[in-house]
Amino acid sequence: MNLARRPLYAQTEEILTQRIAEGVWAPGALIPPEPELAAELGVSPGTVRKALTALERRRLIERRQGRGTYVAAQTSERALFHFFRIHDLADRKHEPTSLVLDFRTGPATAEQAAALDLAEGAPVHRVERIRALAAQPVILERILLPAERFPRFALPLLQEMEDELYVLYQRDHGVTIGRAEERLGAVAADEAQAAKMRLWPGAPVLEIQRIAFDLADRPVERRVTWVDTRMHRYLARLD
Amino acid sequence: MNLARRPLYAQTEEILTQRIAEGVWAPGALIPPEPELAAELGVSPGTVRKALTALERRRLIERRQGRGTYVAAQTSERALFHFFRIHDLADRKHEPTSLVLDFRTGPATAEQAAALDLAEGAPVHRVERIRALAAQPVILERILLPAERFPRFALPLLQEMEDELYVLYQRDHGVTIGRAEERLGAVAADEAQAAKMRLWPGAPVLEIQRIAFDLADRPVERRVTWVDTRMHRYLARLD
Repeated sequence: MNLARRPLYAQTEEILTQRIAEGVWAPGALIPPEPELAAELGVSPGTVRKALTALERRRLIERRQGRGTYVAAQTSERALFHFFRIHDLADRKHEPTSLVLDFRTGPATAEQAAALDLAEGAPVHRVERIRALAAQPVILERILLPAERFPRFALPLLQEMEDELYVLYQRDHGVTIGRAEERLGAVAADEAQAAKMRLWPGAPVLEIQRIAFDLADRPVERRVTWVDTRMHRYLARLD
Repeated sequence: MNLARRPLYAQTEEILTQRIAEGVWAPGALIPPEPELAAELGVSPGTVRKALTALERRRLIERRQGRGTYVAAQTSERALFHFFRIHDLADRKHEPTSLVLDFRTGPATAEQAAALDLAEGAPVHRVERIRALAAQPVILERILLPAERFPRFALPLLQEMEDELYVLYQRDHGVTIGRAEERLGAVAADEAQAAKMRLWPGAPVLEIQRIAFDLADRPVERRVTWVDTRMHRYLARLD
């Protein structure tokens, strides 16, 4: 990794991110005080402070008044409220409940492998589930995970933590989701999708293609979501 | 405005935002040095610095190495690249070209008035336009503006600046767009929409309902956009 040309605080931020990404500092752990970090890394306390402020803005660490700085846990609140953007027409968020329709592990197709930066044929877990909002089946979702990163991923676990997958990824697999990219479009539901979502074939549905990245910025989850937007919307804030 | 319970730097940020919002500090203007601002507002230089950092993060000001701090201009780059999220399937952004189909000024309906926080019947400008990407009519758009905030808004101007409306809002009307909210869903194109977008009636299109706010956080533009997403996607980054 060539850090030479970036500002010192950005290099410091990257070193500290790496420690969180690699689990050297675990979720919930207390981070050494600023002067100690500065001495260890050979930078000024001001540089460490600037790096920590950047990490705080990325919600990777939390400063607790009078108690120190901690590695943020992938709390269900962050997972649900940061990455879940579906609201009803009055802008309310409902907690989804999920029903797994299918779960299997098998070789990745060329297209799946490309999306997750894997070799073709590498083993992947595939989950299909319906998510209900206010007891209505609003969301159909297909999730794809590299089996190598999620070796113990299995259906019973999935059912237990059904709506907090990102919490489960971190707790059981050491994978923290740092960011995601979503590509949205409108498509016509095919017959199978329509039946699962209680729609008619050809009904317009919002299609969301998400790639989620871990803290080292490797793609670790591909998710395609179809949403019945007659009573719900995807809310984006452009600040 | 009751600022009493907020941290000092946040109060300072709000005072400085107000100056930009009201045009006391115009786009492109040089901002007084930190010590001068601190003395004027009766806060510490550190508090001023923290407020300016927040304004910089919101892209309202720009620090130029060795030359001082300036009020950001609503550059076309910011307007186009920050608020325009439509990409082709290879994630490339194309510069849109626009064709105005209709422009008129008249009384707001109850629904339009509510969206823009106006009295029912208040005069509003309505623009309908088609936007082409790579010479294909991909986007149909209906824009609604309160005539009181945009008294000189007229079609010739609109054609001249057709794809940089937010630049025009600021340059000619003193309205700087600070943020926007977008609500996305999938709908079936009706006959009139389909004809304008060269689609078939019932074709699934992405519907984006945007409310744009000025720096004082007042809603100043309502825009409904329909996108043919067969060859394009709306890209959102969740960091």
